[in-house]
Amino acid sequence: MSSIPAAPDDAVRASIHDRSAAFLDDLVEWLCIPSVSADPAHAGDVRRSASWLAGKLTATGFPVAEVWETEGAPAVFAEWPSGDPDAPTVLVYGHHDVQPAALEDGWLSEPFVPEEREGRLYARGAADDKGQVLLHTLGVQAHLAASGRTAPAVNLKLLIEGEEESGSPHFPALVQANADRLACDAAVVSDTGMWSGQTPTVCTGMRGLTDCQIDLWGPDQDIHSGSFGGAVPNPATEAARLAARLHDEDHRVTLPGFYDGVVDLTDEERLLFAELPFDESAWLRTAHSHAALGEAGYTTLERVWARPTAELNGIGGGYQGPGGKTIIPSSAQLKLSFRLVAGQDAEKVQQSLREWVAASLPDGIRHEITFWGATRPCLTPLGHPALQSVVRSMERAFGQRVRFTREGGSGPAADLQDVLGVPVLFLGISIPSDGWHAPNEKVELDLLMKGVETAAYLWGDLAEHWRPQESALPGPRTHSKPAPATPAPLSQEE
Amino acid sequence: MSSIPAAPDDAVRASIHDRSAAFLDDLVEWLCIPSVSADPAHAGDVRRSASWLAGKLTATGFPVAEVWETEGAPAVFAEWPSGDPDAPTVLVYGHHDVQPAALEDGWLSEPFVPEEREGRLYARGAADDKGQVLLHTLGVQAHLAASGRTAPAVNLKLLIEGEEESGSPHFPALVQANADRLACDAAVVSDTGMWSGQTPTVCTGMRGLTDCQIDLWGPDQDIHSGSFGGAVPNPATEAARLAARLHDEDHRVTLPGFYDGVVDLTDEERLLFAELPFDESAWLRTAHSHAALGEAGYTTLERVWARPTAELNGIGGGYQGPGGKTIIPSSAQLKLSFRLVAGQDAEKVQQSLREWVAASLPDGIRHEITFWGATRPCLTPLGHPALQSVVRSMERAFGQRVRFTREGGSGPAADLQDVLGVPVLFLGISIPSDGWHAPNEKVELDLLMKGVETAAYLWGDLAEHWRPQESALPGPRTHSKPAPATPAPLSQEE
Repeated sequence: MSSIPAAPDDAVRASIHDRSAAFLDDLVEWLCIPSVSADPAHAGDVRRSASWLAGKLTATGFPVAEVWETEGAPAVFAEWPSGDPDAPTVLVYGHHDVQPAALEDGWLSEPFVPEEREGRLYARGAADDKGQVLLHTLGVQAHLAASGRTAPAVNLKLLIEGEEESGSPHFPALVQANADRLACDAAVVSDTGMWSGQTPTVCTGMRGLTDCQIDLWGPDQDIHSGSFGGAVPNPATEAARLAARLHDEDHRVTLPGFYDGVVDLTDEERLLFAELPFDESAWLRTAHSHAALGEAGYTTLERVWARPTAELNGIGGGYQGPGGKTIIPSSAQLKLSFRLVAGQDAEKVQQSLREWVAASLPDGIRHEITFWGATRPCLTPLGHPALQSVVRSMERAFGQRVRFTREGGSGPAADLQDVLGVPVLFLGISIPSDGWHAPNEKVELDLLMKGVETAAYLWGDLAEHWRPQESALPGPRTHSKPAPATPAPLSQEE
Repeated sequence: MSSIPAAPDDAVRASIHDRSAAFLDDLVEWLCIPSVSADPAHAGDVRRSASWLAGKLTATGFPVAEVWETEGAPAVFAEWPSGDPDAPTVLVYGHHDVQPAALEDGWLSEPFVPEEREGRLYARGAADDKGQVLLHTLGVQAHLAASGRTAPAVNLKLLIEGEEESGSPHFPALVQANADRLACDAAVVSDTGMWSGQTPTVCTGMRGLTDCQIDLWGPDQDIHSGSFGGAVPNPATEAARLAARLHDEDHRVTLPGFYDGVVDLTDEERLLFAELPFDESAWLRTAHSHAALGEAGYTTLERVWARPTAELNGIGGGYQGPGGKTIIPSSAQLKLSFRLVAGQDAEKVQQSLREWVAASLPDGIRHEITFWGATRPCLTPLGHPALQSVVRSMERAFGQRVRFTREGGSGPAADLQDVLGVPVLFLGISIPSDGWHAPNEKVELDLLMKGVETAAYLWGDLAEHWRPQESALPGPRTHSKPAPATPAPLSQEE
């Protein structure tokens, strides 16, 4: 890991400077399109947004820029071959749809009429994700201008989906169906953020997810707690027992085998996390919570970024109206979500849960478990050479040491890792105050331009320092069946 | 306990026989009044029912028969002094209101047009409770006719409330306000049943009840389980933990002190319960349940009749809609009811719960407990001389040995014990198939006449064999404050 930021490139900076006004004009134009994927009334706007982007990518120089239809909103695919047969292939991921927004939600200016105030551009989608997608247009232009190349140093591909804010319902199928054209050596996800403007960071992984509902049935109808109380099993009590027994006293998940294979934090990563200027009381305010609580032996950041969890999302059973009702309920229900980390396999967790629930319930309680789906975790080890390229590029752009984070949530990035069998890198410049999904979303223009600069360095750095075949995953994944239980090693170094 | 039923009384039987047709005509007339207390549309019918009963009691010979107003539906009070200064005073409790009923619920005949079929009288209220109230009119008449007395051998009082099917909201206040006029040596509750027509039984106690709601709050709003999962307390999980920890592996309640002072079953009572022809699979069908489960070391009957319980009546928190939602909920809620037995005090249980909940919850979870109220348990020991009178009277009427039950539910009978400070006796002839609260409610006419006969024997037997002062509670209760924690001893024998 370099500890002294690499030197910036005057030519790159000059090129970005020359084109920055036009770039911002483009961004403003795009932000005016209310591409709200969740609202059918904006379906036309989402299509318009896709066309606009495809046109812009063509204008940028991409020889291929296509709108890809899905069963829902369209995605945009673009490709710019390097010309060098040994060059790595990189696929940039982002999305062009946005969250809903209305002035009356508390915006100080119209959400779809971008307004610049004090170095910030306010608009829905400014940070999530149009700004972070568009930075790649100026990024590749600066890369070419500064290097004198006519094509990027890597084979550059972009896949910008149109349904991310609606849960990416058709994204896995889209990736599956186009796996050949999307084939690459790494994915670069530009849909995340950094620790802060003062502390630039690179995200190295996201947690996976599997969630489910457990229905429990006891008596065939609600029965009188006086006549029968204390003598028959109560499904609400059994639901509560399942939820309660899912963790031990140390807040560790008790499902047999749950931690088997978990890729634990390295000492280096724990040290790096610990160096971050973390303010737990500020974090608690963000969490709208009044105390921290979690797995013994780990810090709050480690718990949300790097440890698997079981969380009770909802529970219900029996009487929930006003006052009391002295019944034994006939049924109850749990909603559980499990965040998974590298080394865990959703199918194994599901199977363990099935067996554990069946073994936990007494006679007289029927049950059914429904899993809603599974998103795999992704993790790129600190020592991975492609990750090192991202770090070096950011350090050149920011002129300071770059640190590391992870993302506790789960997202479609994992589908890229999973279906395409490649490591996922994160290049994001948004910061927590950017207000994703909230009123007055904004992007910090200085950070946005640092992101452009990072992208401009990245393609050359990757081509120069990375030999994908030396750190590749062992062979392409089979696309028609689930990926193997344990993520393949992404690097020999770790 | 007598093991040979006492001889019946030919004079009593002849008197009942002579008057039975008129008695049944009266009952049919009363059952035609749809005194549904829960339905405001029937408020006039409930009043009409009260007036009808007061008139009938006057016609029976009661020198005092009054309609007592409450803030809800009216009750009926009647009194017939013995004239003997040493005679015990007995207060009969029942109710003249009924559950709703409509032909389309599955009745074979109009619920308020009584119909006799195969020795059964079908009508709403036939068993619950008009039949069992009215039996006391013919009962006292037969008692007088057979004994040649002009006033009963005991000072006889009746209190027949009009809101039992609506939860008796004004009953405790009514009893409190009229405690002087209701003063007695024992209450006789005629609002329960027997094991079966073949196995006549006397109920010796009812469980008490206190129920509550526990609200828990964690984050100020639902938060993202990816961003924060595993690092802050989850109020739904904490609600589940409370519910789960409320019982140990033996299904005993874990609240500190919960079993302190509990009057345990005597060996004699356990033996007597065990002799009852209990069919657990038939009982499970009644319970609409598929397995029995409860406190280790006790049978099903012991669990529902004589053991205190904690039951989860409802639980709710977080997302309960279709599909999944990966949140940490901001709040959750439990509804708990505790059935109490003699020796337990609702206030102590409430206080223990308050302390236990406060000590169980982690930092970051706020909570609030709301108790809905408390009904005390009541229990009359097998050896109590007034209970022996009931048993002897029933054995004379039924010509067979009488066994014992208890009632798992809770009811206003406990208010009589509590406010008036007297033992509660149960004289009921209804059987489980009578269909209380269900379509086609009926009373078995032969059992009803056995009930009349029991009542006819009871007053003379009590006057002859019971000296209340020798088995009285120690001094009158103070009516304006809660009763003491532990039920006062009802008898020196036990």
